[in-house]
Amino acid sequence: MLLVYRIPDINFHMTKMKSSSVFYLVYTLSLIFGLLCIIFVTTWCKGYRGGFAWDGTVKMFNWHPVCMVTGLVVLYGNAILVYRLPFTWSSNKLILKFVHGTLNLGALSLAVIGLLAAFWFHNKMHIPNLYSVHSWVGFAAVILFGLQWLMGFLAFLLPCTPIWLRTAYKDLHVFSGLCILPMTVAASVSGINEKLIFVLDAPNSTASYKNLPPEAYLANTLGVLLLCFSLTVAWMLLKREWQRPNTHAFSLSDATEPLLTEN
Amino acid sequence: MLLVYRIPDINFHMTKMKSSSVFYLVYTLSLIFGLLCIIFVTTWCKGYRGGFAWDGTVKMFNWHPVCMVTGLVVLYGNAILVYRLPFTWSSNKLILKFVHGTLNLGALSLAVIGLLAAFWFHNKMHIPNLYSVHSWVGFAAVILFGLQWLMGFLAFLLPCTPIWLRTAYKDLHVFSGLCILPMTVAASVSGINEKLIFVLDAPNSTASYKNLPPEAYLANTLGVLLLCFSLTVAWMLLKREWQRPNTHAFSLSDATEPLLTEN
Repeated sequence: MLLVYRIPDINFHMTKMKSSSVFYLVYTLSLIFGLLCIIFVTTWCKGYRGGFAWDGTVKMFNWHPVCMVTGLVVLYGNAILVYRLPFTWSSNKLILKFVHGTLNLGALSLAVIGLLAAFWFHNKMHIPNLYSVHSWVGFAAVILFGLQWLMGFLAFLLPCTPIWLRTAYKDLHVFSGLCILPMTVAASVSGINEKLIFVLDAPNSTASYKNLPPEAYLANTLGVLLLCFSLTVAWMLLKREWQRPNTHAFSLSDATEPLLTEN
Repeated sequence: MLLVYRIPDINFHMTKMKSSSVFYLVYTLSLIFGLLCIIFVTTWCKGYRGGFAWDGTVKMFNWHPVCMVTGLVVLYGNAILVYRLPFTWSSNKLILKFVHGTLNLGALSLAVIGLLAAFWFHNKMHIPNLYSVHSWVGFAAVILFGLQWLMGFLAFLLPCTPIWLRTAYKDLHVFSGLCILPMTVAASVSGINEKLIFVLDAPNSTASYKNLPPEAYLANTLGVLLLCFSLTVAWMLLKREWQRPNTHAFSLSDATEPLLTEN
C-alpha cells in the first residue's frame, strides 16, 4: 500500500505554472494544425476535385476526405482532450463527461457520413467496397470508435453502472481511445496517397503524381499536418503532469492529510 | 513536494504478480504479431514479387518493404520495449542502455538499407524519389529515428553528459521514441496500399486490387498485423504499472524509508 503526503512547496506551484504555459503553447499549436487540416482538405476537394454534391458522383465522394479529416481526426482529437484542459478542471465532472461524449458523437456522426459518401459513390460507379488496406484500417478505426462510444456511454454515463465496472474499464477506455488516433492517421495518409495515385496517374490526367504538381504538394502537406496534429494531441494526452488532477486530492484542505491511497 | 512512504502489503504483491502475467500474455502476443509481420512481408516479396537481388531491378526494391517492416517496425518495437521486460529489471542499467542502443542501431541500419534499396531502384528506373505522401511520412520517420538515436547516445551513453541534461531530455526522448511507431505504421500501411495499386492495377497485370486476389489479401493482412503489433507494443509502453520501477525505490531496505521524492 502506498500513502502519499503533500507538503506545501512554492517551487512546486512555480513548476506547475510553467508547465501550464507549455501546455497552452502545445494546445494552441494543435488548434492551428487542426484548423489547417480542415482548410487543406476542403481546398483540395473544392479547388482541385470539383467541389461537393450528394448525388453519387465523384463530388459526393469528396465529402469522404472532408468528413474523415474533420470528424475522425480533428474533432476526435479535440474530444479526447477535454479532460486535459486546465480551465475545465473546476467544472463538474458530469458536465465534462457530457461534453466529451457529445463531441465524440459529433465526430462519429461525421465519420459515418464520410463512410456513406464513399460507399454510395462506389456503389453507383460499380467499384467494390472495402478492398484496399486503407479501407480495412479506416473501417476498423470507425468500428472501434463506435464500440468505444457505446461502451463509454454504458460505463460512464448510465447512473446504474456499478463503480467497480467503471474502474475496471477506465484504463482500457483511455488506451483504446488513444489507439484510434494513430489508426485514423494511418488510414488518412494511405487514403491521400491512394486518391492522388488514382486521379493524377489516371490515363486522362494532365499531371502526374511523380512530378509533384501543386495538388500533390497540397495533399501531401495535408498528410504531414494530420501527423503533426495527432502528435501534439498525443503529447498533451501522455504527459503525466498535464493530466487532470485527482479530484479526491483536490478536495483535501489539510496539507498533511493523505492525498492518495493506492493498492 | 511529495513524499511517498511504503508500507508492506500482501495484496500489493499479489496484484503485481497478476499484472506481470497479463504483461507476459501481451508480450507473447506482440512477439507473435511481429513474427507474422516478417513472415507475411517476406512471403509477399518472395512468393508474389519475384524475390530478392541487389541489382537495381524490382527484385532490389523488394528489400525495401522487408527491411522497413523488419527493422523500422518489428525490431524498433522490440528495442523500445527493453526497459519494460520484468526479467531485465535486476540487470545493471548501463547494460540495458547498451542493449536498447544496439537493437535500435540494428533497426536504424535496416531502415537505411531499406531506403537505399528504394532510392537505387528509383534512380535506375528514372522514377523520382520522395514524391508520395508515403515517402514523406516514411522519410520523416527515418530522419527522426536517426536524430533520436544520436541524441540518445549523446545524452545517455556518453559519461560526460551532465545529469541535468539527461533529466531534461528524458521525457522528450521517451515521447519522440513513442511517436516514431505510429509514423512507421502510417508509412507502412500507405506503402502497402501504393505497391498493391502499382502492381495489381498495372496494364500488364492479370489481377486487379479491386477483386482482392490472394496477394492483396496477404498484403492487406500484413497492414493489419503491423497495426496489431504496434498497438500491443504501445499498450506495454503506456501502462503505468508495467513501467520499470524506480531504481532508487528498489535500493531502500527499510520499508518506512521515503520511497520517492518528487518536486
